[in-house]
Amino acid sequence: MKQGGTSDTKPGKTPASPLIEEARRKGKAQQASYRDLEYLRLTDASKDAPRGTAVLEQTTVFGYPGIGRVLALKPGLDQNFAAPFWVEEKINGYNVRIFRLGDRFLALTRGGFVCPFTTDRLPDLLDLDLFEDAPDLVVCGEVAGPDNPYLESSPPFVSHDVRLFVFDTMRLNRPGFQPQSETYSVVERYQLDAVQHFGRHSHEDIQAIQDILRRLNDEGREGLVFKEDSPRNRRAKYVTSDSSVSDIRATAANIMELPPEYYTNRILRLVLFLREQGLEHSIELDRQLGAAFLDGLLAATRQFEADQKVYHTYRCRFRQRDNALALLNHMEQVGGHQVQISRRDLREEGGYWVLEFDKLYPGLTGLLANLLSGGMIFD
Amino acid sequence: MKQGGTSDTKPGKTPASPLIEEARRKGKAQQASYRDLEYLRLTDASKDAPRGTAVLEQTTVFGYPGIGRVLALKPGLDQNFAAPFWVEEKINGYNVRIFRLGDRFLALTRGGFVCPFTTDRLPDLLDLDLFEDAPDLVVCGEVAGPDNPYLESSPPFVSHDVRLFVFDTMRLNRPGFQPQSETYSVVERYQLDAVQHFGRHSHEDIQAIQDILRRLNDEGREGLVFKEDSPRNRRAKYVTSDSSVSDIRATAANIMELPPEYYTNRILRLVLFLREQGLEHSIELDRQLGAAFLDGLLAATRQFEADQKVYHTYRCRFRQRDNALALLNHMEQVGGHQVQISRRDLREEGGYWVLEFDKLYPGLTGLLANLLSGGMIFD
Repeated sequence: MKQGGTSDTKPGKTPASPLIEEARRKGKAQQASYRDLEYLRLTDASKDAPRGTAVLEQTTVFGYPGIGRVLALKPGLDQNFAAPFWVEEKINGYNVRIFRLGDRFLALTRGGFVCPFTTDRLPDLLDLDLFEDAPDLVVCGEVAGPDNPYLESSPPFVSHDVRLFVFDTMRLNRPGFQPQSETYSVVERYQLDAVQHFGRHSHEDIQAIQDILRRLNDEGREGLVFKEDSPRNRRAKYVTSDSSVSDIRATAANIMELPPEYYTNRILRLVLFLREQGLEHSIELDRQLGAAFLDGLLAATRQFEADQKVYHTYRCRFRQRDNALALLNHMEQVGGHQVQISRRDLREEGGYWVLEFDKLYPGLTGLLANLLSGGMIFD
Repeated sequence: MKQGGTSDTKPGKTPASPLIEEARRKGKAQQASYRDLEYLRLTDASKDAPRGTAVLEQTTVFGYPGIGRVLALKPGLDQNFAAPFWVEEKINGYNVRIFRLGDRFLALTRGGFVCPFTTDRLPDLLDLDLFEDAPDLVVCGEVAGPDNPYLESSPPFVSHDVRLFVFDTMRLNRPGFQPQSETYSVVERYQLDAVQHFGRHSHEDIQAIQDILRRLNDEGREGLVFKEDSPRNRRAKYVTSDSSVSDIRATAANIMELPPEYYTNRILRLVLFLREQGLEHSIELDRQLGAAFLDGLLAATRQFEADQKVYHTYRCRFRQRDNALALLNHMEQVGGHQVQISRRDLREEGGYWVLEFDKLYPGLTGLLANLLSGGMIFD
C-alpha cells in the first residue's frame, strides 16, 4: 500500500478510491499494518463512510455504524421507530467484521484495525466455507468471553475462551447492512452462532419487551438492540441495570483513564432502568452498586501494595505464535504512550499458543504511588 | 470604590495598594458590591495573597489558604509534619472570615465575596463585642446547618438554622494565621463556638488519631484538620468514609454540573479510609454507597416527572429583608448563566425574614428532558 499509494487515485476502480482520497486530504485516514499486509483505516467518519472503514488492497470494508442508546425504553421506542422492529440480545464483547481478502480471512475491529487475535481464531469461530458461496460477504458480530485481549468483563454464559455472536451482514465495497431477513438466512444456512432473537415487535408489545429485559437482567445479560424492519433500518440499544453495575465493577482499576462521564452515564442508565421496571427500592442493588466501586478499588489498592502497580492480566490463545506477537504489537500501536503492555508468558498448550500479558493502569498506579507515600492533593 | 479607584494607587497607604494593583494588571482582581459597599476581590492567587483576598475601602482581608488533603493518613502525617500538630474536627459547612469595617461587621466567603446571609446573622453567631477589644481581628470559621443558602448537606449535630464553628484567627491587612494558642485564647475569652479540639499530637499517636476518626465516622462527622505547631504552620485535612458517602448523596441531582473527578475522588477517599481502618468488607457500607447514588437520582427523576425540572429548595432566615434580596442578587452574580435561582417565598416569621428559593440543576434537567422524551445518545 505504501508503494501503491498512487493506484488509489485511479478513478472508478472501486468505490474506495475517491472516498479514501477525500479522507486522506482531511487527515482522517491512517495507515496500519497486520503482518505483511498494509492498509488504510478511517479514524473519523468521512462522507458516507463511518469511522473504522478499512481499505485493504482494492477492497473496502465499510465501518459498522454507531447505534444510538435510549435510556428510557418506552419513549425511546415510541419516538424513534415508525415501523415494527426486530429485537435481539446485546452482547458484552467487542465488535468485529469478518471477510475474505484473496485467499486469507480477516477480522476488523470497530476502529478498522485487523485484529490479530480474532483473525487467528476465525476457524474456531465460524464455518469459513460460507465465503466460497458468498465471497463478498462481511459477517458482523460480537466476540465475547473471558479469554479475550480487550475487555475485562464477559457474559456469564461464555464460561471459557471466546465465542462469536453474529448479528449483521454487509457486502464488501458497499456501506450499510443487508436486510435482516438476509442475515437471518445466512445464519441459518451456515449454522453460525448468532445473538438470541426475540422476534419482530411493535410499540404495543412494550410489556413483553420489558419482561424480556427483566429476564435478561436476572440472568446477568447486557440488554437489547432494536432494528426497525424498514428500508431506513433505524436502530437503538438499551441495557439492563446489571450491565451498568458490571461495567462499573469491571473498570474500577481503570477509573483514572476513563472519560469523566463513564460512571455518571452508567448510574443514570441504571436509575432509569429501575424506574421504568418499577424496581425502585432494591437494597440488594444498592449493595451491588456500592460493591462494584469498592471491591474493585480495594483490590487495586491491595495489588498496588503488593506489586507497586495496578494492572490487569489478560489471557488468550492463538493458533499461530506470530499472531500472538502481532497482537502485542497492535496493542502498543493503538494505545500510544498511555498504554503499557508487558508480556508475561507465551507457551504452547493443548495445540494452542497461550499468551498472557499485563496491561498497566498508569493513572491509578501514579495516583496511589503519590497518595500512599503521603502526597497531598488540593481539590 | 468605583470613584475611589485612583486612591488605590497611592503607594504605601496600606499593604493592599501594590498588591491589588498587581492583581488588577494581571486580571485577577474583580469588583463586587454588597448593598452600598463596593470592593475588590482576588479571583486567583497573586503573590502572597491567596484567592479570595478582599480589599474593602482601605482594608485588606487576606484569603483563607487552601488546605491540602491526604488520602492515606499515616504516610500523610509522616511525610508532611516535622513537628507535633494540633488536631481539630473538620466541619461540613462553608468557610467565612468575619471582621469589622468602620462601624459595620461583615463576613466574607472563601471566594472573597461579602456574604449577605452570614453578614446579616452575625449577631446570632458570635459576640461582636470582641471587636471592641480587637478591632483588627479576623475570625475564621465554618458556618454549618440545614438552613444555609449554599450547601445541600449539613452536620447531623446542627438540628436547625446554622451555627458558627471557629477554627482560626487572622489580623486585618496581614496574610496568614495567628498562632493556634492565640486563637484558642480568643475563643475562650469571648466564649466563641469553636470546632472540637482533640489536642496536640505527634506521629506516635497514630492509633489514637485513628480511634478518633472511627468515632467521628460512626457519628456521621466529616473528619479532621491537622495543624503543625511550628512557625511554618503546615496543615492537612483528612475525611471519614461517611463524609464521602454524604457528599455523594447530597449532590446526586447536581451530577451533570460537578467536575468529572468529583465522584471518583470521593470513592477513592472512601476506599483508602476503609483500607487504613481495616474495615474492608462492610456490606452496610456497600449499600450506603449504592443508595447514595440511586436514592438521589431516583428522587431527581421523580421530581422531573412532577415538575419538568430538577431543583433544590433552600431555606434560610434573615434579620433584615434587604439582606435576603442581596443574597438572591449575590447568587445570580456568582453563578453566571449556569445558575438559575427562583424565589419561592419571603415572609416574616418569628421576628425573622424567612427566604425560600429554588436552585435549578440545568444539566440533569436538560438531560432528563431529552432522555425521557425518547432522545438517543451516542456514547
